[in-house]
Amino acid sequence: MSSLPSRATVYEVGLRDGLQNEARLVPTSEKLALVHALLGTGLRRLEATSFVSPKWIPQLGDADELARELPPSSGVDFGALVPNVRGLKRALRYPQITTVAVFLSASETHNRHNVNRSIAESLKGFAEVIPAARAAGRDVRAYVSTVWGCPFEGQVDPKKALDIAVELHRLGATQISLGDTIGIGNPGQIARLCELFLERLPAGALALHLHDTRGTALANALMGLMAGITTFDASVGGMGGCPYAPGASGNLATEDLVYMLHGLDIETGIDLSKLVDAGLVARRVAGRDLPGRYLTAAVAERRVARAKAEANRGA
Amino acid sequence: MSSLPSRATVYEVGLRDGLQNEARLVPTSEKLALVHALLGTGLRRLEATSFVSPKWIPQLGDADELARELPPSSGVDFGALVPNVRGLKRALRYPQITTVAVFLSASETHNRHNVNRSIAESLKGFAEVIPAARAAGRDVRAYVSTVWGCPFEGQVDPKKALDIAVELHRLGATQISLGDTIGIGNPGQIARLCELFLERLPAGALALHLHDTRGTALANALMGLMAGITTFDASVGGMGGCPYAPGASGNLATEDLVYMLHGLDIETGIDLSKLVDAGLVARRVAGRDLPGRYLTAAVAERRVARAKAEANRGA
Repeated sequence: MSSLPSRATVYEVGLRDGLQNEARLVPTSEKLALVHALLGTGLRRLEATSFVSPKWIPQLGDADELARELPPSSGVDFGALVPNVRGLKRALRYPQITTVAVFLSASETHNRHNVNRSIAESLKGFAEVIPAARAAGRDVRAYVSTVWGCPFEGQVDPKKALDIAVELHRLGATQISLGDTIGIGNPGQIARLCELFLERLPAGALALHLHDTRGTALANALMGLMAGITTFDASVGGMGGCPYAPGASGNLATEDLVYMLHGLDIETGIDLSKLVDAGLVARRVAGRDLPGRYLTAAVAERRVARAKAEANRGA
Repeated sequence: MSSLPSRATVYEVGLRDGLQNEARLVPTSEKLALVHALLGTGLRRLEATSFVSPKWIPQLGDADELARELPPSSGVDFGALVPNVRGLKRALRYPQITTVAVFLSASETHNRHNVNRSIAESLKGFAEVIPAARAAGRDVRAYVSTVWGCPFEGQVDPKKALDIAVELHRLGATQISLGDTIGIGNPGQIARLCELFLERLPAGALALHLHDTRGTALANALMGLMAGITTFDASVGGMGGCPYAPGASGNLATEDLVYMLHGLDIETGIDLSKLVDAGLVARRVAGRDLPGRYLTAAVAERRVARAKAEANRGA
């Protein structure tokens, strides 16, 4: 355990990856309340929205309204997905959006299904988007999904995912987030793939985007930490589900991640108790109980504490 | 990852630790249906019930009726909790009960709260129970709870837990199961405590009883595996909750554990698909959706597959 980093970055994706997989169409004002709750925890990197067509993702159809209202806080990095140059141009209107993100899949079938392009066509588009974003002073995240398995193709060749990541890095992406899109990865795979990627890319250029669909997300994050990865994507409360198995869990819950990191004496700059408060806001925003384990336990503990306090007042 | 064992033992505690924390009073016949479903998965070590007073745990008030009907399968080890010599005598009536289990806490306050005895008094009682059980040809499990933290005292001195475990081993306990009763442990602690315990006890004499209250159970199990532990307690579907925070998750779900173990190429002798079938039986037995992540995902996937099959038939 001596090889663990002393600090890790939590990249909050609930407002984008979470909400785009929630059924409820959330008013912009409620999203902004969640943004402020999350900023109150100490989180400094938040993906806020996506400049895709509202026809594709109606949940994020208010991207412009939301981006306009994002607080211009120094030291806070807001991100937004941009599918193409048109999306990038929209994002660049907002100085608060300091990171734009492109996305593709390591599986041809999943990429075709998701964006109706081949992987080569996606990369060709990014060859325009990424340098333009960097020239405009933005950082660029690149999501590579289905690295640990594809809902259509099953196993994915790690070397193919690696070649894609190396190409994205060459094009100027500042960070490549490797996605276990269907939450199928296991710690052994994570260790092997991290080793493979770290042979050709610096640790700081990589992030892990883990899903907790089968309960393995924290064990996988632990292997990532041991391998040297220090940025992890997570969604407040575990907001968002698995689009391929409605009802199953999706994103790793931010509280679960932060709880483990702090237990390992890894600093995040995040106040876990305030993160629970933000989780309560997220529950209201999603309009449902969220699957995050730590949040669920904290809510239950607060309920017990309230009942005790009331009993004491009554006595 | 090269140091991982090639085989691990899953000790199924759903029928006892799970059901005693479920609200529903389950008829014996339904428990037996779950026993048979679990045996069908390849599981060979199951804790079936507890010979405590029905006044304490009404959910397990049918211990005799259940024990009488347990299938006398060769190679299957059924376990039962025995609080004292009286409980042991009841358990010894049933040849199928090949393991009896004693239990105490590493925290004085928790032990007092749970069994109304000091730790020394508990150990004194076990000095009678354990040798008598061994003399009757039974294996003895000893549960040490709150090793990673106590709901009343907070932190627990690991050296105290270790002294208790060493004494239990000296008294003849065949396996000591170290419990993270409130699911508060983190992988760093697990690694340190396993190292400490393994200095004085052989790995085969230890098991980890992990709770997933804060989502860390599998990450903790992974650290246990790396330290050399090869037996892990788990509950089908994650049945049972956290008695200190009603609504929160309790036991690590057996399917989540088996999914991770198989992904790490660690043999368990368990058929994961049949374990999902058993999880569906457990849902009916508990009368509620269970929190296990893998089970939830498998149920969702089966629903999607059924809908597709129906759509194809309709087309």
